[in-house]
Amino acid sequence: MAVNLLPPDPAALRPVAGVRLGVTEAGIRKANRKDLLVIELAPGTLVGGVFTRNRFCAAPVTLTKRHLASGKAMRALVINTGNANAGTGADGLARAGRVCDALAQIMGVEGDQVLPFSTGVILEPLPVDRVVAGLPAALAGLAAENWAQAAQAIMTTDTVAKAASVVVELGGRSVTLTGISKGSGMIHPDMATMLAFVATDAGLSQACLDDALRQSCDQSFNCVTVDGDTSTNDSFMLMATGRAGVTIDSIHSSEYARFTQALNEVCIKLAQAMARDGEGASKFITLTIEGGRSRDECRKIGFAIAHSPLVKTAFFASDPNLGRILAAIGYAGVDDLDVDQLELYLDDVRVAVQGGRDPDYREENGQKILKQPEIEVRVVLHRGAARAQIWTCDLSHDYVKINAEYRT
Amino acid sequence: MAVNLLPPDPAALRPVAGVRLGVTEAGIRKANRKDLLVIELAPGTLVGGVFTRNRFCAAPVTLTKRHLASGKAMRALVINTGNANAGTGADGLARAGRVCDALAQIMGVEGDQVLPFSTGVILEPLPVDRVVAGLPAALAGLAAENWAQAAQAIMTTDTVAKAASVVVELGGRSVTLTGISKGSGMIHPDMATMLAFVATDAGLSQACLDDALRQSCDQSFNCVTVDGDTSTNDSFMLMATGRAGVTIDSIHSSEYARFTQALNEVCIKLAQAMARDGEGASKFITLTIEGGRSRDECRKIGFAIAHSPLVKTAFFASDPNLGRILAAIGYAGVDDLDVDQLELYLDDVRVAVQGGRDPDYREENGQKILKQPEIEVRVVLHRGAARAQIWTCDLSHDYVKINAEYRT
Repeated sequence: MAVNLLPPDPAALRPVAGVRLGVTEAGIRKANRKDLLVIELAPGTLVGGVFTRNRFCAAPVTLTKRHLASGKAMRALVINTGNANAGTGADGLARAGRVCDALAQIMGVEGDQVLPFSTGVILEPLPVDRVVAGLPAALAGLAAENWAQAAQAIMTTDTVAKAASVVVELGGRSVTLTGISKGSGMIHPDMATMLAFVATDAGLSQACLDDALRQSCDQSFNCVTVDGDTSTNDSFMLMATGRAGVTIDSIHSSEYARFTQALNEVCIKLAQAMARDGEGASKFITLTIEGGRSRDECRKIGFAIAHSPLVKTAFFASDPNLGRILAAIGYAGVDDLDVDQLELYLDDVRVAVQGGRDPDYREENGQKILKQPEIEVRVVLHRGAARAQIWTCDLSHDYVKINAEYRT
Repeated sequence: MAVNLLPPDPAALRPVAGVRLGVTEAGIRKANRKDLLVIELAPGTLVGGVFTRNRFCAAPVTLTKRHLASGKAMRALVINTGNANAGTGADGLARAGRVCDALAQIMGVEGDQVLPFSTGVILEPLPVDRVVAGLPAALAGLAAENWAQAAQAIMTTDTVAKAASVVVELGGRSVTLTGISKGSGMIHPDMATMLAFVATDAGLSQACLDDALRQSCDQSFNCVTVDGDTSTNDSFMLMATGRAGVTIDSIHSSEYARFTQALNEVCIKLAQAMARDGEGASKFITLTIEGGRSRDECRKIGFAIAHSPLVKTAFFASDPNLGRILAAIGYAGVDDLDVDQLELYLDDVRVAVQGGRDPDYREENGQKILKQPEIEVRVVLHRGAARAQIWTCDLSHDYVKINAEYRT
């Protein structure tokens, strides 16, 4: 039961010139389920990525980084669900390589021009034969209009497919950005993100593409958490085909500014969708921490609140047991925080002031807000001008149910 | 449903000469529930404490620290449940002071010879009149044999009272250590602990007492976590009456070594009891991390596993989805960890070796162990000689239920 999140309207997802997508049912873990996606890139497409900093980085992540570093032109991405190919050692790397080679052979390119991605169960061998057997069907279905199907094919415990499209005018040309992502557990991309793929027909120099990728990730995917678990497979990829006839080659240009604004719009929508569809989510919660000395300390406090099982269960129950939020702020690791300066709001209702309960606060006002499907928690630190926003969801019975039964 | 944890046998809880305890039903939050405890200390008793480092440190914690710093002889502790008196600002401090003053007046001592402790809901005013009204009844019932009743009176969401006693021979004298503690949510005493009170009739110099307190806390309460939430009210107090006729005044003496060994025994039992009776717990899990470069990095990894909702729900479900453990190790923050060296065991079954699945591992062997009520997870890092142990529990439907309904 995702919070205020509708499946993408296929008609609203704009094709990106130079990108075609094909999906199939490869039966990797379960039958009758789209679990394999190929994204074909036209020659000349530039690709960049940011990846999990989990030390147990999955084999496909290692291989993707290696292929990107080869300096060759990337021609395809291949993404499977049902198996993460993580915690699989040297054998896992070999299996990911076999998938790339098989796809490259059919396409008539080199193995290191293909980027592999996996998501699913960790510590189990990738059934590479099934993946390879599914490739011809995925390729046969390649089409520029397949973004909605692609969003569906990368779902795991997601209940709603996640995709977004923005069109922006740049240098007199119409530029499209379209992206897809998946959640919805093991979500705490403090370093990178879950799987997200965004393509544009704008042309970007590699420096501009890498910069846009990083700043956008920092404003979007790095601000969302479901359960504080950072995945082994997080990857956010940006692909720029250049087919729109406009090229951005300076991060100081107005085109770059407008492009990154559009990119942020797509990425924030995809990132928020992960929290809206967090495992078992019944509430979408925005944490705004302001008046801090640095963005970093605001983020620390935001994530402490967002990761507290006690806060999350109180939100689930619509119980304004808001002292739990204060406790989380207190242990967030901001050692010189003067809590006597602090204000806490639920939407526009002030709950605490000067570190204690606001004398005018009435529990029924807090309760009313907690019953809403979307809630903003605002913490004002009164010690500086920095600010951060974190998006998360509540912790419900269904989270436990989904994760207790994940492999059954 | 606490895991292998029986209520304390009153007969096995040895009185400590110089300490008397009295409890009553003060109706602080709920009727017909023992919620107020007074611990009376004989003149000459030395007291030390370690406290939460949560920046939202509760009013009674602030006051207890202030009273200890006065240099006066402490004569009583007063502990209430039902209200934490935290997030209550200057008014909360005044209320805690009124409780101390009222008790001191009846006992004929000074207000700053009384140490206050509270546990319960945060951000609500302490009903000080009810606490004060309950004091005479608690004092009327003072008795040296009341440790089991005392353990019961400090329970909140605990399902089983927690107490332990050890007798040790020191310098030809029989020395007793008896303690009580409470859990069972908002438990991650990384800095201090939940409420725990241990008394001994040994005499200790203040230096020995403070040292024993710190090292023991570090070996026991600081190794347990239920949900990663560090409370605003954590306090661990050690009281030494000296009535056994033996005095320990050097941390280099063999008496000190044997005393701290006995103290560790009591504290580890109390700390483990918190995890055994963690909110909604159905499994007691010991995480042993060894072969690390430092105890600190072993603890980081242990807590990352212990706090992962995905690992905890898998344990609840008896599902050997053990890749989740690898993922948690990977994001624990040990940045130069070479995962290819790593071994993972469930009890004696090796699951992973050289960072990947052990070829000899059979899922049914893992499953069998996960069905046990007590499980050891052992991680061998192969990069040093340091070691740490963390105790925790699983994350069940009941955790969500208990915390969603905590105030109803």
